[in-house]
Amino acid sequence: MTINLPRTLAMGGTLLLLGSFGMSTRLRADEGMWLFNDLPREMLKSAHGFDPTEEWARNIMLASVRFNSGGSASFVSSTGLVITNHHVASDTLYKISTAEHNYLEDGFWARTPADEVRAPDLELNQLVSIDDVTDRVNEAVPASLKPAEAFKARQAAMAKIEGESLKATGLRSDVVTLFGGARYHLYRYKKYTDVRVVWAPEAAIAFFGGDPDNFEFPRYNLDVSIFRVYEQGKPAKVDQFLRWSKNGPADGELVFVSGNPGNTQRQFTTAALKYLRDHRLPYVLDTLRRREIMLQQFGFEGEEQERRAHDDLFSVQNSRKAYTGMLQGLQNPAFIQQKERSEKKTLEQIQADPKLSSFAQAWSAIAEAQKRRTALVGQSAILASTPFSVAQTLVLMAAEDQKPSPERLREFRDSNRESLEQELYSPAPVYSDFERAKLADALAQFVEKRGGDSPLVQSVLAGKSPKERAAELIAGTQLADPEERRRVAAGGQAAVEQSTDPLIGLARTLDADFRRIRQETDELDEIERQAYAQITAAQVAMHGTSGYPDAKFTLRLAFGVVKGYREDGQDVPPWTTVGGAFRHEEAHGARPPWRLPSSWHEHRANLDPETPFNFVSTADIIGGNSGSPVINRAGEFVGIIFDGNIQSLTSDFFYSDDVGRAVSVHSSVIPVALRKVYGASSLADELGH
Amino acid sequence: MTINLPRTLAMGGTLLLLGSFGMSTRLRADEGMWLFNDLPREMLKSAHGFDPTEEWARNIMLASVRFNSGGSASFVSSTGLVITNHHVASDTLYKISTAEHNYLEDGFWARTPADEVRAPDLELNQLVSIDDVTDRVNEAVPASLKPAEAFKARQAAMAKIEGESLKATGLRSDVVTLFGGARYHLYRYKKYTDVRVVWAPEAAIAFFGGDPDNFEFPRYNLDVSIFRVYEQGKPAKVDQFLRWSKNGPADGELVFVSGNPGNTQRQFTTAALKYLRDHRLPYVLDTLRRREIMLQQFGFEGEEQERRAHDDLFSVQNSRKAYTGMLQGLQNPAFIQQKERSEKKTLEQIQADPKLSSFAQAWSAIAEAQKRRTALVGQSAILASTPFSVAQTLVLMAAEDQKPSPERLREFRDSNRESLEQELYSPAPVYSDFERAKLADALAQFVEKRGGDSPLVQSVLAGKSPKERAAELIAGTQLADPEERRRVAAGGQAAVEQSTDPLIGLARTLDADFRRIRQETDELDEIERQAYAQITAAQVAMHGTSGYPDAKFTLRLAFGVVKGYREDGQDVPPWTTVGGAFRHEEAHGARPPWRLPSSWHEHRANLDPETPFNFVSTADIIGGNSGSPVINRAGEFVGIIFDGNIQSLTSDFFYSDDVGRAVSVHSSVIPVALRKVYGASSLADELGH
Repeated sequence: MTINLPRTLAMGGTLLLLGSFGMSTRLRADEGMWLFNDLPREMLKSAHGFDPTEEWARNIMLASVRFNSGGSASFVSSTGLVITNHHVASDTLYKISTAEHNYLEDGFWARTPADEVRAPDLELNQLVSIDDVTDRVNEAVPASLKPAEAFKARQAAMAKIEGESLKATGLRSDVVTLFGGARYHLYRYKKYTDVRVVWAPEAAIAFFGGDPDNFEFPRYNLDVSIFRVYEQGKPAKVDQFLRWSKNGPADGELVFVSGNPGNTQRQFTTAALKYLRDHRLPYVLDTLRRREIMLQQFGFEGEEQERRAHDDLFSVQNSRKAYTGMLQGLQNPAFIQQKERSEKKTLEQIQADPKLSSFAQAWSAIAEAQKRRTALVGQSAILASTPFSVAQTLVLMAAEDQKPSPERLREFRDSNRESLEQELYSPAPVYSDFERAKLADALAQFVEKRGGDSPLVQSVLAGKSPKERAAELIAGTQLADPEERRRVAAGGQAAVEQSTDPLIGLARTLDADFRRIRQETDELDEIERQAYAQITAAQVAMHGTSGYPDAKFTLRLAFGVVKGYREDGQDVPPWTTVGGAFRHEEAHGARPPWRLPSSWHEHRANLDPETPFNFVSTADIIGGNSGSPVINRAGEFVGIIFDGNIQSLTSDFFYSDDVGRAVSVHSSVIPVALRKVYGASSLADELGH
Repeated sequence: MTINLPRTLAMGGTLLLLGSFGMSTRLRADEGMWLFNDLPREMLKSAHGFDPTEEWARNIMLASVRFNSGGSASFVSSTGLVITNHHVASDTLYKISTAEHNYLEDGFWARTPADEVRAPDLELNQLVSIDDVTDRVNEAVPASLKPAEAFKARQAAMAKIEGESLKATGLRSDVVTLFGGARYHLYRYKKYTDVRVVWAPEAAIAFFGGDPDNFEFPRYNLDVSIFRVYEQGKPAKVDQFLRWSKNGPADGELVFVSGNPGNTQRQFTTAALKYLRDHRLPYVLDTLRRREIMLQQFGFEGEEQERRAHDDLFSVQNSRKAYTGMLQGLQNPAFIQQKERSEKKTLEQIQADPKLSSFAQAWSAIAEAQKRRTALVGQSAILASTPFSVAQTLVLMAAEDQKPSPERLREFRDSNRESLEQELYSPAPVYSDFERAKLADALAQFVEKRGGDSPLVQSVLAGKSPKERAAELIAGTQLADPEERRRVAAGGQAAVEQSTDPLIGLARTLDADFRRIRQETDELDEIERQAYAQITAAQVAMHGTSGYPDAKFTLRLAFGVVKGYREDGQDVPPWTTVGGAFRHEEAHGARPPWRLPSSWHEHRANLDPETPFNFVSTADIIGGNSGSPVINRAGEFVGIIFDGNIQSLTSDFFYSDDVGRAVSVHSSVIPVALRKVYGASSLADELGH
């Protein structure tokens, strides 16, 4: 199970959220994460004989849903039902669980709408329009500005466009940077913030095979959960939704994936890739491994502790496995050498052309920026702890709110305030023993990275060991309570300055350092944005074509065919069956994580062992695509993406359909499971199958 | 379960084997790891009213045994029986196990001598004499020499003394550096290399509570195994051994621990401690965590893979937990500040005294050396893989053997050859899938640390990813076979140069780099050796006294009293009972690792629940002391050290008897378990109990 955005690290800052540039001059078959306002019509027509209508594309766009917690989904009924992965839903299932009722492990079905359980802090987005605002953004940034000022001018222009759009339409309005800075598009979203859990299976079938089977195929995972969106306290009426396919996809059939790939680095310069290879990813992996061990250790303390750590542990293990595969790809000399050769050729062409030669400096600007990025690796004063994140947000927000919206740090602009508050005031439980363990580890890592002699470290520790200090901070804070957060926020700068809450105090201590690093990374982002814009311009000048931009966790359409592959000399068929799941359990002696839930054993006799379970396709996906609907030519729902195989883990950097595959739950198994295993026929009826 | 030397990392190089200096001017009660030729008689007399005779001390020294794989032990019968910890024996139990017969998990008892199983590569040492050779070593090193030459001259002098001693006595002869370089003692050992397993319990009782309970107390671990040493194919006749105590120790009783503490850094300068805190230990922990995850992942592949990874996994988890505690101690600002104050005071005294002021430069020399050490962290070209270690040893040995013994790298001196070959030609199994996984991870880490653009990295990878390269190297090597190792070694330099074995090729590729780093660390060791010798001289001049030197994995005597402590406002009694073990199992729902073996359940009715199981004492121990006998005033065996509690993990840097405790198996439970659980009464008879 992959590929929602790594939540834990995403919280930690700017993981891989570098500017990126996208333009493939030579695409492989089925490559691409395409913009809905620039679909590859020629390619689809010539390769697959399919010519999508405007209406076809618009319907899919409107039926697609983004989970802002880090995943994708789709509308599958007029009554507001939304289907996504269990591992996308897990964040919510975890937050609504208690020691007595474990939704995440045990599953759930709300037999009536009154039983549906509201998510404490979910925001779902439906993309409704896309407008090109490149000229407006660039006009605000004269070429004479230095990077730091250019960054401010550009952010201000974007915040202004967003603010005006919000005011005019009432829709969430985000200016999205595409092609690493060559294009700016205004995305308007309808927001749903009243989102309720309707149905989830047991973790044992959603994540059958656990961490060992993750990123493997064949698989047998019912990695699915169903929510419902509400408006004014009633199930929302949804006009565009995906109709359920009768039989699902056939072998070799063309399918589409509509979802929100998180981040790719397909067109990074080699200097940027080497920074990832030698500095950024090794640090990220060291961090993930230390968290994994810390979470395992915490879980040993008892069953309730294991439950508390479970969701983070899954997320960290999933990211660790994904990044290990990515780094393995970058460490392969053949890959970088090929990039170097192609880059050298491009540069030679540019330098030979007097009209283009000035663009060459873009590559060296990016290389210089990587040196500055290297010095920042691991320096961040963002500590992985929920109440500390709250404290830091409150301290920053109070100061930023003194400024007009366009001048603030981007996340504090007016047009984002509702979304920010949805998260900041979340009533999700905060467990003090768990927060103590996480903060102790985060403080210890901070001491390691900054050095025990640093005056800032000494202020942070206040004379105590990281463990003692974390215990004191968590014992003293009131910020576990959302009402206290609202109280501090309402009091503004004065409340923050006068607060005696020890975590607010810590956030104040770290504030100048946080801002120093943020300013540096913002400036580096701007340098790269300008450089990648130049590189894009040079490529367009040379090749006269634009492809698809690197992923940015915004809606894209990918396509591919249902297709098996060969591995270790064996044919791997494109799909698995329900009977295979029971055989897979048996082959592992039913040891966890290969133990199917009792519900499946009880109802085994009712299940047709030939029912398709999971399948693979050549569609181009990446982290963030988790929960994306798989759709046929008729626009019907034929499956749901939940993973990529291990061979696809390098697709951050390059797409290959040799053996890399997207892994989906087959549309047929979902209503079968609902009816035969979970006795939820009325829900299957509502899905129209 | 602690505290044998971390095997895995010890293989990796020079972990914490820095020069160290030891001299406590103010000792805490029961502090000290004392030299057998310089016991704290005054202290014992005044604090405990005990005045050991020469004979008492000599008998204990001769009854003590060192496991060169990284632990301590003792003779407990005239028939050559040696008792140590199960977790010290585990290296051997693992190596003699197969997919069909798992000695490590299932335990073992050889009913007759013919059933005893020979360890493939164990060497046991019995210390028989200690001589001061400080003057001879120092005479060979004129003050005019630069560090690199001084290092060579000193090593040559030591090798010469050792070679002469071996020739004269036939005994293993090691010159040991004490007080960080102020003293050199010649230790002569009787070696036992025919060592056979007699009895081991199941891992489930030896390591009851597993990683979660490790370093905790109360405990209920039968962390014991019994070997027998042989000479000329017959059980060795042993004159000095420990007689079994009838009742074991009483609360408050004075006890002694005779064993081989591995390394302490009690008298490190603050600069040296800060290097550990900010550079060395963070790197060691990152390495341990990545190995832990790698070993867990490998174990997921199947039960046999889990077995293959088990011993390394235990060792890595044990080290990770120990070093986490150590780093936590170093990160406590109070600790370093106290060290700084005391160091400042000493320096002021020295600088105020014209006879001593020249010694002050020793502290700055050590501080300078730490800067150079920092640049070397993680650079080592030693890859954690058994066949690669073999290849590297063969390549180095062939070249070193071209030189006279005193000029070689220390481990290749003639007087050490037998011990080296015992390990090099070990017939212990080598599993290619496991070695592939370990080497792939080690290569990936090497790429991370040296950078993918390094020409050396590019030579090492030969155009492949770390994983592909590891697969190719392990598939191609013949070095899993000890006969092939002998063949290459017999062929000397020519055989190494002409070898087409890919791992020999890799070791040749890495040779210059290995030697460059080794030369640098040897030089730094010499600089610190001279500096710590000066610091010792200054301290003796000021205080006129010498204490105990930092630990060096040589025999020491510690002492303390059996004594409980307070934790979280509760009294922790000094011992646990057999009944408590069953209650502890029940409290954890008998979930692994809290599931007692079936043998204990079957024979529960025969067991007196009041039988003492484990106990704590204030004796000063550290990693390497695992398996040390605990001895009473009468010189009887009353227990066996197997762990320190979590509060004692900072004892690398300072001893405290507030709540830090050594944890032992009580002597009473061992014969009870042998008779009542394992039906091994004849073995209990042989132990004389």
